[in-house]
Amino acid sequence: MKLMIVGLGLIGGSMAMALRNYPDLECTAVTRNEVTRAEALRMGIIKSAWPTPDDAPIENQDMLMLCLPPDACVDFVSRHAMRLKKGAILTDVCGVKQPLKAAIDALAPHPFIYLGGHPMAGKERGSFANATPDLYRGSHYILVPDTDVPDSAMQAMKQMIHFIGCADTIITTPAEHDARIGYTSQLMHVMALALCDQHLLFDSYGFEGGSFRGATRVAALDPELWCELFSANREPLADLIDELRDNLQIYADLLRSGDRSALLERLRTSSDRKKAFDAERGLDRLHSPL
Amino acid sequence: MKLMIVGLGLIGGSMAMALRNYPDLECTAVTRNEVTRAEALRMGIIKSAWPTPDDAPIENQDMLMLCLPPDACVDFVSRHAMRLKKGAILTDVCGVKQPLKAAIDALAPHPFIYLGGHPMAGKERGSFANATPDLYRGSHYILVPDTDVPDSAMQAMKQMIHFIGCADTIITTPAEHDARIGYTSQLMHVMALALCDQHLLFDSYGFEGGSFRGATRVAALDPELWCELFSANREPLADLIDELRDNLQIYADLLRSGDRSALLERLRTSSDRKKAFDAERGLDRLHSPL
Repeated sequence: MKLMIVGLGLIGGSMAMALRNYPDLECTAVTRNEVTRAEALRMGIIKSAWPTPDDAPIENQDMLMLCLPPDACVDFVSRHAMRLKKGAILTDVCGVKQPLKAAIDALAPHPFIYLGGHPMAGKERGSFANATPDLYRGSHYILVPDTDVPDSAMQAMKQMIHFIGCADTIITTPAEHDARIGYTSQLMHVMALALCDQHLLFDSYGFEGGSFRGATRVAALDPELWCELFSANREPLADLIDELRDNLQIYADLLRSGDRSALLERLRTSSDRKKAFDAERGLDRLHSPL
Repeated sequence: MKLMIVGLGLIGGSMAMALRNYPDLECTAVTRNEVTRAEALRMGIIKSAWPTPDDAPIENQDMLMLCLPPDACVDFVSRHAMRLKKGAILTDVCGVKQPLKAAIDALAPHPFIYLGGHPMAGKERGSFANATPDLYRGSHYILVPDTDVPDSAMQAMKQMIHFIGCADTIITTPAEHDARIGYTSQLMHVMALALCDQHLLFDSYGFEGGSFRGATRVAALDPELWCELFSANREPLADLIDELRDNLQIYADLLRSGDRSALLERLRTSSDRKKAFDAERGLDRLHSPL
């Protein structure tokens, strides 16, 4: 299988590393970064590399994987996706799925099979320099296949996902993906930022434990990337923030009321929700990149 | 040195395990749990154990370490601390320091030296069964010494803290401790609970990544313990929640405004705060229990 990865940052670079030794794979890449091209070739994780998609033999690929930020993915698709051969798989790793899906639908009828993806793995620091072959180990890999994706394409994708060490594959739609990710990822990033906006941050050196590090780790994010992700999902995300503010208000009110038994009851209910969530999914077995 | 640990849960049990092989130490314990007593004796991490403080030879100890919840610590101190011999060190591991300090001041003049402590380590699941000898590795250990603590007592404590693997020792006052911990620990726990109160929690199986796990891990907390901790610091904590709600509102407003450059600017400023915090403290080198 000829796989071309477009973009060798943290996600694309880790993908190429994780796919080293994948059977019958010829992996190539497109990346503007000359140092990354040289390093990836030296490591032997790609066979060839091109600086721009214009030079790259997109026409020959069995699978094209876009590892670019959302806006760049949309731009790439509108300019280059029609060069794919009939039956080639087009996939991506975007953190929002609806904008790219719309760009792909605008090309219909198109020769390629669209099978969007989103590996639930990352680090707060991007770039090829931070890529690692075990980035995906234990993570969920979400797929948003078009309705007409043949079973053989699904199987090819799932085999790769299994090979790179993911815990499982989740199948969903672009709309459902964006609603869920607004909560599980985007809201967590907003909250991490808001926690670091607090006036006590720099007075708190030496007082941090695991809860602080876990909650604020992702605040050291890439502003451009997350501005794109938030903007593509802004109404649902704003609604989730409203809900979180309401939930927080309940705790502030309970604390100020001095009603300790009511506070205890709330802590029981809320911690039971989390314990039920963890128990059902066996979260403890999942890798966490922190 | 004769050290008696009162309470062999997660914190006390891990302490006894971490102090195994500490030079010239005779470690004993008080714990009501018969199974824990038997297991700790079998492991060889304590030399003797008693079910209640009434039976235990508190009078002979060089150091007494209270590893109990805050209310139980206060109760213990008022009932048993005066049994300590002159010059013995009384320490504890409470997550709030002012209530215990008040109980100790109420005993003055007292024969013992009070040197309160708070290791910034833990797990969401307590009990001796979850204790591990490396719990403290890489964590901060906060000390709140009384004003008249002799240098020899400080050195004895610091040596133990170093031995169990802590990254450093932070010296502060009970009031400052409680203000800082309200932010670095209690607010993080409230926020984790509030995130798990969101309506999408149980619809989000399979969509969680590292940011979700990091932010919500501690929501699986012990309600009784955290009700005590929150209640002992309730006004400052409620104020911190108000501040967090205001900070979150800013993101909701920016998202709804559609002003992408203003949103980007905010993300830059906030992520830069976190990056500056991480850089200055070399947080990456610290152990995180997640």
